[in-house]
Amino acid sequence: MSIFFDGPGKGPSLSNQADQIDQPVILSLDTSSRRTSMALSRGERLLALFGAELDHRRSERLWYELEFLLNEAGVELKDIDLFSACTGPGGFTGLRVGLAAIKGFARAGDKKVAAVTSLEALACAQDIAGPVLVTVNAHKGEFYAQLFDSRTTGLPVARSKPSLASIEEVVASVNQIESLILIGDGAEAAWERAGQIGPLKGWRVRVQPDFLAGRMARAAHLKYARGDLVGASELRAIYARPADAVVKLSQGLVGKGLR
Amino acid sequence: MSIFFDGPGKGPSLSNQADQIDQPVILSLDTSSRRTSMALSRGERLLALFGAELDHRRSERLWYELEFLLNEAGVELKDIDLFSACTGPGGFTGLRVGLAAIKGFARAGDKKVAAVTSLEALACAQDIAGPVLVTVNAHKGEFYAQLFDSRTTGLPVARSKPSLASIEEVVASVNQIESLILIGDGAEAAWERAGQIGPLKGWRVRVQPDFLAGRMARAAHLKYARGDLVGASELRAIYARPADAVVKLSQGLVGKGLR
Repeated sequence: MSIFFDGPGKGPSLSNQADQIDQPVILSLDTSSRRTSMALSRGERLLALFGAELDHRRSERLWYELEFLLNEAGVELKDIDLFSACTGPGGFTGLRVGLAAIKGFARAGDKKVAAVTSLEALACAQDIAGPVLVTVNAHKGEFYAQLFDSRTTGLPVARSKPSLASIEEVVASVNQIESLILIGDGAEAAWERAGQIGPLKGWRVRVQPDFLAGRMARAAHLKYARGDLVGASELRAIYARPADAVVKLSQGLVGKGLR
Repeated sequence: MSIFFDGPGKGPSLSNQADQIDQPVILSLDTSSRRTSMALSRGERLLALFGAELDHRRSERLWYELEFLLNEAGVELKDIDLFSACTGPGGFTGLRVGLAAIKGFARAGDKKVAAVTSLEALACAQDIAGPVLVTVNAHKGEFYAQLFDSRTTGLPVARSKPSLASIEEVVASVNQIESLILIGDGAEAAWERAGQIGPLKGWRVRVQPDFLAGRMARAAHLKYARGDLVGASELRAIYARPADAVVKLSQGLVGKGLR
């Protein structure tokens, strides 16, 4: 049943945007969580974004959605100068699907890739300079966490490596910081934990971005500007947690027949 | 040319989301600027968002994009409990198109509408309580502006009416406020103007949301919770500026034959 008009809405041609002709066209893709998103941008400017909660036939729907996005933005795949991939941490299968897509695009078109972690994307585009704790719920009682120094312009600078820990461990690692921005879907949990163990400091929970691809687009442009890019073959996922299959194998729960 | 798989990616059925079954499904639509966006949400949760810069065949493409969004979110039009319309201020034609679409949907399905202004949507979902100046570039040297008291939960409370003024007038109207959040695509201009006329205070420019529909979805849910909804026939645009045609008519530049 279609209550709407049929047919795609072919967007304006990129060639009309003469004022930004020297800026790279960037396709950003995030599949690190169920909240899949993709963005097309030109330089700092976001042209189009699509995001949805996908937990059903994601790897198949991704291609249809990417085509829709390109079509609505009036961009062809060959027009894309740079690809931005979310390297994680995040779900194993989602990351595999997203990285495979970006690797394929970049390889086929001989284009570079800006590798952006999900934590870096969340720390990016803050309007306050200073320490930012990014905390993302990794489920099973654990959180991905990383501390950054936020810049009001430029990329955030990592002050720690991405970690996977309990919320108590995450908060303990930053508890001495007086003024701290908290972002990510684990930020509320970290804030509550901090309140349990002492008087609350100058900590502030930030509003979450609706979808990560918009933030990735900004990070990718900043990486492009400083030449921090990789080739398709150098693109690697950051899992920060071993795959369930690896854990089960090490525990002897699966794969006995393979030993 | 299609390099991708064909066919729509039918999303999961809403009936699977049993944990949120008592929350309203909301469709939010913003056409107040060239940055058209639309969002589907359930309660506080954003299910899907699409946004693009559209200045070419917008009124036609809108329907195709809405159908895509519904399809990807696995939502049918009849499932939508509440519509959220951006009433402006903003471009005349864009607002007309968006309001006509929402009026049609709401009327046909006998559903209520949350009327959200573009300024209110920008002031919404702040993570700092206190005064927020929303400033949106209206072009021709003018800015839409409105002062709100931001809440960390709940809707922002308007402290002034929406106005249309020069950036000098906008800044003069709030210049006595020591600690102020600035948001909207005119925020940088207001911040620079404030710096020209005196030492900079505790003013801070916030990161812009990528697209407004995500913010509208939150505002609509808050209005739903307090019963601040209207019927389709009560929905009115806020232009804050007379249409060019009205100005030209009053100046005798057009429409002489009609007098």
